[in-house]
Amino acid sequence: MKVSARNVLKGKVKGITPGAVNSEIVIELPGGLEIASIITKTSVENLRLAIGKEVYAVIKASNVIIATD
Amino acid sequence: MKVSARNVLKGKVKGITPGAVNSEIVIELPGGLEIASIITKTSVENLRLAIGKEVYAVIKASNVIIATD
Amino acid sequence: MKVSARNVLKGKVKGITPGAVNSEIVIELPGGLEIASIITKTSVENLRLAIGKEVYAVIKASNVIIATD
Amino acid sequence: MKVSARNVLKGKVKGITPGAVNSEIVIELPGGLEIASIITKTSVENLRLAIGKEVYAVIKASNVIIATD
Amino acid sequence: MKVSARNVLKGKVKGITPGAVNSEIVIELPGGLEIASIITKTSVENLRLAIGKEVYAVIKASNVIIATD
Amino acid sequence: MKVSARNVLKGKVKGITPGAVNSEIVIELPGGLEIASIITKTSVENLRLAIGKEVYAVIKASNVIIATD
Repeated sequence: MKVSARNVLKGKVKGITPGAVNSEIVIELPGGLEIASIITKTSVENLRLAIGKEVYAVIKASNVIIATD
Repeated sequence: MKVSARNVLKGKVKGITPGAVNSEIVIELPGGLEIASIITKTSVENLRLAIGKEVYAVIKASNVIIATD
Repeated sequence: MKVSARNVLKGKVKGITPGAVNSEIVIELPGGLEIASIITKTSVENLRLAIGKEVYAVIKASNVIIATD
Repeated sequence: MKVSARNVLKGKVKGITPGAVNSEIVIELPGGLEIASIITKTSVENLRLAIGKEVYAVIKASNVIIATD
Repeated sequence: MKVSARNVLKGKVKGITPGAVNSEIVIELPGGLEIASIITKTSVENLRLAIGKEVYAVIKASNVIIATD
Repeated sequence: MKVSARNVLKGKVKGITPGAVNSEIVIELPGGLEIASIITKTSVENLRLAIGKEVYAVIKASNVIIATD
């Protein structure tokens, strides 16, 4: 599957914090950057996410805000 | 200003494609990763974005989808 | 690729309205339902979208609002 | 009330999973399609959502990603 | 129609900037606050938006970022 | 830090409802309007949010839906 979302960043699952409905996933990118994601608990199970698993962080360009100092 | 958005990635503006209402901004992160963003043309002017300017890509964790192969 | 987004609806491209930065895509689902999507013009080209092409509309559950009469 | 969101899909509540802050709602569309939604627990109460209730899934076009095989 | 989105702010259309696909709408709230919105050109036509028209800005709580000084 | 998000509304924290992963924050704007926000529990701690604290609600224009009666 190929997605229209312009940002697809490869990394590894570094942390999973489960909640009743949503879970927080922290992904480590090459170079040490980290990306935090909130997805449903059901999706964590569907994707069989676990520490160390290779994943992609997928982000639609319209969801990226730009900031300056 | 400090934001609740969990993902704040520092980079430099690499490209600006203007439209009538929205503009597309491409940000280069250290290590060669790129992030595409869609913001309003007015914001491009307000932030005085230009090629080479240091900026942050700000992404709310709830807007990050996870994908696996 | 398998995505955490809970809603993945299969359909066919019915319409493409191009803009300078974003394009509007209308997808026809089985049963006659239609889904409108805004993606970047670059993504339309990357995915080689054209009328009649089979595609999926992918929607994160946190982006679905519920309404009642 | 009429909304600018381009996608308004009529269905019935099929499932409600409550959390402390957010709840997951599954909506069944005609033809058997399902849509998952995450809304606040307070909204579930405000809308008096219950299994079988007729509702609409409302999705802004800019939140629809497109994928291809 | 009643929506799950927690933020529904009443105001009047103050400005409309049309593009090929998206249009920018500025809404004036009571007290002088302004809200900018990007919706499709088709929605501007469907809702018959015009300067001075009473409208609501509808914002899902999960789309609100918090910032501090 | 200055953000591309077009809507930055100043207010005070009126309520905090914590969950395992996400928390709900209610912000009171001048004039009595309220804005509800869902952010991660980690962000509540990072920003040291507490009742009465001055904050900004930051909303990207593409996340604002418009409704009419």
